[in-house]
Amino acid sequence: MAYNLLKGKKGIIFGALDQKSIAWKVAEKAHEEGAVFTLTNTPTALRFGELDELAKKTGSEIIPADATNLNEVESVITKSMDIFGGKVDFILHSIGMSMNVRKKKVYNDLDYGYFAKTLDISALSFHKLLQSCFKHDAISEWGSVVALSYIAAQRTLYGYNDMGDAKALLESIARSFGYIYGRERKIRINTISQSPTITTAGSGVKGISGLFDFTERMSPLGNATAEECANFTVMMFSDLAKKITMQNIYHDGGFSSMGMSLRAMQMYNRSLDCDDCPDVE
Amino acid sequence: MAYNLLKGKKGIIFGALDQKSIAWKVAEKAHEEGAVFTLTNTPTALRFGELDELAKKTGSEIIPADATNLNEVESVITKSMDIFGGKVDFILHSIGMSMNVRKKKVYNDLDYGYFAKTLDISALSFHKLLQSCFKHDAISEWGSVVALSYIAAQRTLYGYNDMGDAKALLESIARSFGYIYGRERKIRINTISQSPTITTAGSGVKGISGLFDFTERMSPLGNATAEECANFTVMMFSDLAKKITMQNIYHDGGFSSMGMSLRAMQMYNRSLDCDDCPDVE
Amino acid sequence: MAYNLLKGKKGIIFGALDQKSIAWKVAEKAHEEGAVFTLTNTPTALRFGELDELAKKTGSEIIPADATNLNEVESVITKSMDIFGGKVDFILHSIGMSMNVRKKKVYNDLDYGYFAKTLDISALSFHKLLQSCFKHDAISEWGSVVALSYIAAQRTLYGYNDMGDAKALLESIARSFGYIYGRERKIRINTISQSPTITTAGSGVKGISGLFDFTERMSPLGNATAEECANFTVMMFSDLAKKITMQNIYHDGGFSSMGMSLRAMQMYNRSLDCDDCPDVE
Amino acid sequence: MAYNLLKGKKGIIFGALDQKSIAWKVAEKAHEEGAVFTLTNTPTALRFGELDELAKKTGSEIIPADATNLNEVESVITKSMDIFGGKVDFILHSIGMSMNVRKKKVYNDLDYGYFAKTLDISALSFHKLLQSCFKHDAISEWGSVVALSYIAAQRTLYGYNDMGDAKALLESIARSFGYIYGRERKIRINTISQSPTITTAGSGVKGISGLFDFTERMSPLGNATAEECANFTVMMFSDLAKKITMQNIYHDGGFSSMGMSLRAMQMYNRSLDCDDCPDVE
Repeated sequence: MAYNLLKGKKGIIFGALDQKSIAWKVAEKAHEEGAVFTLTNTPTALRFGELDELAKKTGSEIIPADATNLNEVESVITKSMDIFGGKVDFILHSIGMSMNVRKKKVYNDLDYGYFAKTLDISALSFHKLLQSCFKHDAISEWGSVVALSYIAAQRTLYGYNDMGDAKALLESIARSFGYIYGRERKIRINTISQSPTITTAGSGVKGISGLFDFTERMSPLGNATAEECANFTVMMFSDLAKKITMQNIYHDGGFSSMGMSLRAMQMYNRSLDCDDCPDVE
Repeated sequence: MAYNLLKGKKGIIFGALDQKSIAWKVAEKAHEEGAVFTLTNTPTALRFGELDELAKKTGSEIIPADATNLNEVESVITKSMDIFGGKVDFILHSIGMSMNVRKKKVYNDLDYGYFAKTLDISALSFHKLLQSCFKHDAISEWGSVVALSYIAAQRTLYGYNDMGDAKALLESIARSFGYIYGRERKIRINTISQSPTITTAGSGVKGISGLFDFTERMSPLGNATAEECANFTVMMFSDLAKKITMQNIYHDGGFSSMGMSLRAMQMYNRSLDCDDCPDVE
Repeated sequence: MAYNLLKGKKGIIFGALDQKSIAWKVAEKAHEEGAVFTLTNTPTALRFGELDELAKKTGSEIIPADATNLNEVESVITKSMDIFGGKVDFILHSIGMSMNVRKKKVYNDLDYGYFAKTLDISALSFHKLLQSCFKHDAISEWGSVVALSYIAAQRTLYGYNDMGDAKALLESIARSFGYIYGRERKIRINTISQSPTITTAGSGVKGISGLFDFTERMSPLGNATAEECANFTVMMFSDLAKKITMQNIYHDGGFSSMGMSLRAMQMYNRSLDCDDCPDVE
Repeated sequence: MAYNLLKGKKGIIFGALDQKSIAWKVAEKAHEEGAVFTLTNTPTALRFGELDELAKKTGSEIIPADATNLNEVESVITKSMDIFGGKVDFILHSIGMSMNVRKKKVYNDLDYGYFAKTLDISALSFHKLLQSCFKHDAISEWGSVVALSYIAAQRTLYGYNDMGDAKALLESIARSFGYIYGRERKIRINTISQSPTITTAGSGVKGISGLFDFTERMSPLGNATAEECANFTVMMFSDLAKKITMQNIYHDGGFSSMGMSLRAMQMYNRSLDCDDCPDVE
């Protein structure tokens, strides 16, 4: 069901890869709600992903860019403004990657080159995007920018590694730049802290399936899906959320406000009560 | 502009008094978005307020009730279900009052009868409402309940007195009951922490005008108005925010994430630099 | 090992029952660190507990009082001041009880008389204590007041029931009164949010043993014991923490900052992998 | 007054410059409390500061090092272990610098080379220190590591620029590594979020004097001094805080829990009421 929430609005969507991507779902939903937008991802992602299909389906142009490269980010913005003949109204940042995770470097044995890269891709790219938009005056008054985050920014998760630090930095950048964009341009910047989601990118995180079951049972409404996240993101882009800025909003079925649920405790207790199970530390 | 976000949805709105009320604005907006609902407030409020006008305008019935009285709350719910021929989809709780504030009893000289009354009216009424709905199975699956709160729940404000404690209790009740409603009924419970708003009820708080100017200058987007709060509340009632529960969301122009803004600092510094101004402690 | 951290200091300790009580450990530790103090609890607790033994061991007087009764609280304060010939330097509030928990009334079927009682005993008693001390000017400049809390104030735990709401209210009262005490008297008010602790009072909470195992494995340093809590509480009473006020400090082995630990995940996963285990919902 | 809280303990103190430094005060206090330690800072800081005086006074050796250089950090650790004949018990990280602030590059016009440098000096240096200690098994069981932070990690302050982001990253690193150190070594990692302090390093921040007055009036106990911060830091190093880890503790006179104080409001209102004052935006 569509409401025309984004009728006449123009945007840029960073980070769609394939149909599992949250950014992909946001693009589909924004399209349904009447928006037009450009799509961007790295040349590598464009090669391995299926962005062409999404572009065709939503009538969007694809602008390849490495989000850590200031010139390429700038080119996404100026080209998008050319295509739309003016400013954009919304931007989604859904970008994150850790070479330390990929290369199985644990947190007490990080490679510092990789760590800098994690921060650059997953957090500083957001600043570059915002700074570049600021210089080009690329976002309309009352425009809305959203970056996707995760609760690892506040609470440490085994195996999430330097991505937790990157998300903390990302959320801080949203606040810091949110102040300036609010004051100078009446533009909103927020992060959405989404449930763990089985995307192609997310599936590399160690032990994701056990964690996914745990958060499913801990969350009173269950884990939020990529599609549900897209619904809420579109709401945040709309004119109905004009005075929310510098916030990190948990879209997680209630997980962040839970200490212990009955369902998770029952599953956990079953292990405690199991005499035949293999030993754990 | 309307989107039909609440088309076919039924609700109950507690706490509208007059045109300045946030609950009044929520009613107007919910009506625009296609909802039907009942209105309720205390007999006294009905006498001094202008609820008839709102009822007429939105085609709603008014059900008088003291929200601290379990029987009367129950009657609001059963009558509403009778009117709609079934469950409701959304509820707004916008109720708060402190006799200690009214009678100018300061926080270190509280009357404990009044304190209990503050908690009962401003927080326990929310539990009563939720418990009563739970027993009557009065809310539809994926329904949405919102209570209005204020940042005094987290940070102490001079003159806000025992209302800060009441808001902390209110937000806790939203979490506690949100867990049960999520797990058992797939229903969401959230609070919205709104900017200081000059309503008829809010205007009794000591020093509200200076505070209002301060928060206006501290908030990058300025204070959020009652109408803007209504827009966001309607969003939270809609199907687009299905997986958000047990959260307190700041709808405050960014105030909650600010340490110090340029504009507030300039105003403050002007006082520091003023040689002719009267002495302050 | 003792440091004379509280040499010459006088205090009041509310809530010691038996050797498992955190308040009992605080009394022992404060005694070791050179403090003198009075002890207080309800007549019932005095009958069933072993407070005489503690009083003898620490050279303290016992003053029976119901902490919800303003006159009795006042009497604890004035008698303590008589005994010490002046003001006190520290106070511990370690009081909490829910009749709803005891009578197995679940959160969606609370008895409101019991709920009011839970709040009165577990939270409002703290306000009464502070208001009474304020009137009698009973606390020395730079004095320190600590109330014990639990993370249920922020995150909902299955079975913790209305005690979560009571702890949220308690922490709010600490902030609200902390502002006034700081401004007017240079006195600190804080709460310590302690790990689940197997005390005589705490053992009534549903499913505490499974939860205790979970928090033990989630907390990088393991659950904090009552004795360790006493050590930190004494630190907070000392002159070395003079500028900390209105805070809630987690003394929990790191639990509050964890999203998921390896050890808890392993235990949880064992249940997931168990084919022979009984079904869970 | 001294308590022998750190008797027999050995440590490393990063970041003392001159008598205004918090790290300087920590060194003095740790010395009084019976600790021995090494001191380290950059060659430039050693040239312009007065570290020789502190070293002499406390009987400490100085080991020059650039905290962003892994080899030099490693050398601080191994040399300290040589000097003490074994592991250390505590470490203070008090390091922060932004070239963007120094060069007056505002947040919407950052130099990205400088930004990377800000993060490297102010946050990644903490990871390097911890990773290097981990490899050398340089910290004793139940040892304690503290890094100094600031509320800009949570709330944006005009003029604080990219240092807010650096502090958010620093606090995240404390949590992430705190998990591993807790689990593997029973070692605590925390940050202390201190009031604005007029140090030689801090005095470069734009508009610090107005802010300092504001936080002084907002904080019920006034701003915390460097010396008071040192007292609390030493407490956190002691055996009395063994089960606190992964926390950020506000040592700020209550500022972080204030929404508005009477004293700050009076000063602010004086500006509002001033007809003769120059216009502000």
